Amino acid sequence: MKSFHPPQRTLMGPGPSDVPPRVLEALSRPTIGHLDPDFVAMMDELKALLQYAFQTENPMTMPVSAPGSAGMECCFVNLVEPGDKVVVCVNGVFGGRMKENVERCGGTPVLVEDPWGRAVDPQKLEDTLKAHPDARIVAFVHAETSTGACSDVQTLVDIAHRHDCLTIVDAVTSLGGIPLHVDAWGVDAVYSGTQKCLSCTPGLSPVSFGERAVAKIKNRSHKVQSWFLDLNLVMGYWGGGKRAYHHTAPINALYALHEALLILREEGLENAWARHRRLHEALKAGLEAMGLSFVVPEAERLPQLNAVRIPEGVDDAAVRSRLLADYRLEIGAGLGEMAGKVWRIGLMGHACNTRNVLLCLQALEDVLQRAGAAIETGRALAAARAVLETG
Amino acid sequence: MKSFHPPQRTLMGPGPSDVPPRVLEALSRPTIGHLDPDFVAMMDELKALLQYAFQTENPMTMPVSAPGSAGMECCFVNLVEPGDKVVVCVNGVFGGRMKENVERCGGTPVLVEDPWGRAVDPQKLEDTLKAHPDARIVAFVHAETSTGACSDVQTLVDIAHRHDCLTIVDAVTSLGGIPLHVDAWGVDAVYSGTQKCLSCTPGLSPVSFGERAVAKIKNRSHKVQSWFLDLNLVMGYWGGGKRAYHHTAPINALYALHEALLILREEGLENAWARHRRLHEALKAGLEAMGLSFVVPEAERLPQLNAVRIPEGVDDAAVRSRLLADYRLEIGAGLGEMAGKVWRIGLMGHACNTRNVLLCLQALEDVLQRAGAAIETGRALAAARAVLETG
Repeated sequence: MKSFHPPQRTLMGPGPSDVPPRVLEALSRPTIGHLDPDFVAMMDELKALLQYAFQTENPMTMPVSAPGSAGMECCFVNLVEPGDKVVVCVNGVFGGRMKENVERCGGTPVLVEDPWGRAVDPQKLEDTLKAHPDARIVAFVHAETSTGACSDVQTLVDIAHRHDCLTIVDAVTSLGGIPLHVDAWGVDAVYSGTQKCLSCTPGLSPVSFGERAVAKIKNRSHKVQSWFLDLNLVMGYWGGGKRAYHHTAPINALYALHEALLILREEGLENAWARHRRLHEALKAGLEAMGLSFVVPEAERLPQLNAVRIPEGVDDAAVRSRLLADYRLEIGAGLGEMAGKVWRIGLMGHACNTRNVLLCLQALEDVLQRAGAAIETGRALAAARAVLETG
Repeated sequence: MKSFHPPQRTLMGPGPSDVPPRVLEALSRPTIGHLDPDFVAMMDELKALLQYAFQTENPMTMPVSAPGSAGMECCFVNLVEPGDKVVVCVNGVFGGRMKENVERCGGTPVLVEDPWGRAVDPQKLEDTLKAHPDARIVAFVHAETSTGACSDVQTLVDIAHRHDCLTIVDAVTSLGGIPLHVDAWGVDAVYSGTQKCLSCTPGLSPVSFGERAVAKIKNRSHKVQSWFLDLNLVMGYWGGGKRAYHHTAPINALYALHEALLILREEGLENAWARHRRLHEALKAGLEAMGLSFVVPEAERLPQLNAVRIPEGVDDAAVRSRLLADYRLEIGAGLGEMAGKVWRIGLMGHACNTRNVLLCLQALEDVLQRAGAAIETGRALAAARAVLETG
């Protein structure tokens, strides 16, 4: 057994996305203690940078020391008490995971179901809340990574608030890629991941909790079922002031997140959102010129996660293997009920750049042609270039 | 706000310990996908390396994607069902945390209490199990990081098994530092951390589950309360064969753990244990020559975590601050009921070397002398050197 040297890849799947060298270098700086005064000062900066990314002034904003699934769990175990009725909007894999979380917290999920590949329908949420006036929480996914559908956070939060419900929003794939205004939209609890549009390494989950959510957490009648994720304890360490040991923070991962967020701030959130939009338009033009069709209707489509139908007769796994072998290019397979039916092409963070759009189109064209698809050489690239030149 | 460049430190606290450059370099290798065939092959190696470190052939051996506290929680949420009676041995902070975990899983903890700074008393465990024949699990800490006490795993496991109980063992600070034989001792479930004697960065928790534990997990009557830590799901990804997505693995952290475990295997477990023992003897001789006394009786003492009483009249925080400022040396404060009363000096993994022993003694001597302690210059160093030369 020898040291592991990963192959060189271009990551255009559903995440992780390509991590910039600056972030990898920050990751490898010498480890120091989790109560070191210099480290603690860095934590304060990290919190401010996360507040910027989330567009919030919530003091309870920090990275959970584990991946996005744990960030999701952090929101549910802290906000749901046994017996609570929680409306969960399900339009893909991650809404389904939310439902699992509610059940495992002893809550009662009420589902608002929409077809995979569509946004959450606000009218259905409204109707469900009318039918369940005792519901206290509404949970939904902003950017469904399994399908590429984008739901309207502001509208859904407004409906939830009118029915006196708190909101839990999954922003794993949206943070840094499309507009997300936690304060302006009144989101009560939100979680994200580092390995998508922030282009940091995977393993952390930024979260933020508003005033009403914090009040609910502080006034629970049952202890939070997870000791590790209990915000009443975690905030003794992340809350500022005298830092009480809770668990050993993932020091180096936090260096990396600090650097990734600095890069985002240097570019500016609005510029990052515009870049994702513009390059998505180019990729879309190319994919469509190749005859590929999107799963999600245009108005509900995420720029950073492009789910396209696999052409009939084409072998899903063979195409992805060949992209990896010949072009070192990773694109994502379908997930859940979309397995074998779609590819998910990510344009996230650092990986969302002109080179990658052009590489992906050329590689796909070549590999699909070799798989027997009737694709005219060069059309996809020309279509993408046309968008880039007018952009 | 600028990139964060950590100060240079020597980490001789209770962890994290100094991370070797090889591990930091591995950490910074380019991120690839969690389902990439090359990554999946690395996971198989990582599992084999962890099996070596734990001295087990358990197939269910892997790193939990979060710190040691989550590894603890992983053991409890998977093995404890509501209503289960669990005997928890408490002789420091981490036994107390185990009790919290049992309660939050809906179990009933029965405590075996020993004074902080002492090992768990096997006779008390025996008596408790006789009084509670319906107990099904026994949990205890191998190496209590809060006090430096080492408990006798083999004896405690034997007692538990005679009373038909499964065992959960906290090996956070023991793995790689002192003998731990998961299979030979019949440990049913064990968790550890990466930032102690493995000298990897913090953020992962290696765990291993034996056959009887796996059977209990597979035959639960309630779902595991944590979706993120549910081993029935996690093993779909880590179990080998076709890898099913569960959560996005912390790719780079796993590169680092692979490298840290390679280093351990290169040295050999027995050699690593002997190194910790030998350098502890040198440090001990020096500390005692300086007039400092150990909290834990010699026969129950961990070599890798040296808790010594703070001399009367000496300002705890001032000494630690000066060590940090003048020598860039971090030692640990007391925790829980030992706060302000002891220092915890770690000799863990890569940080357990001759240079650090000598540096620590010289630095402490200087700082304590400046704090007014009557310490004869050079005695500590001479005592340590005498041990090192005969060792």
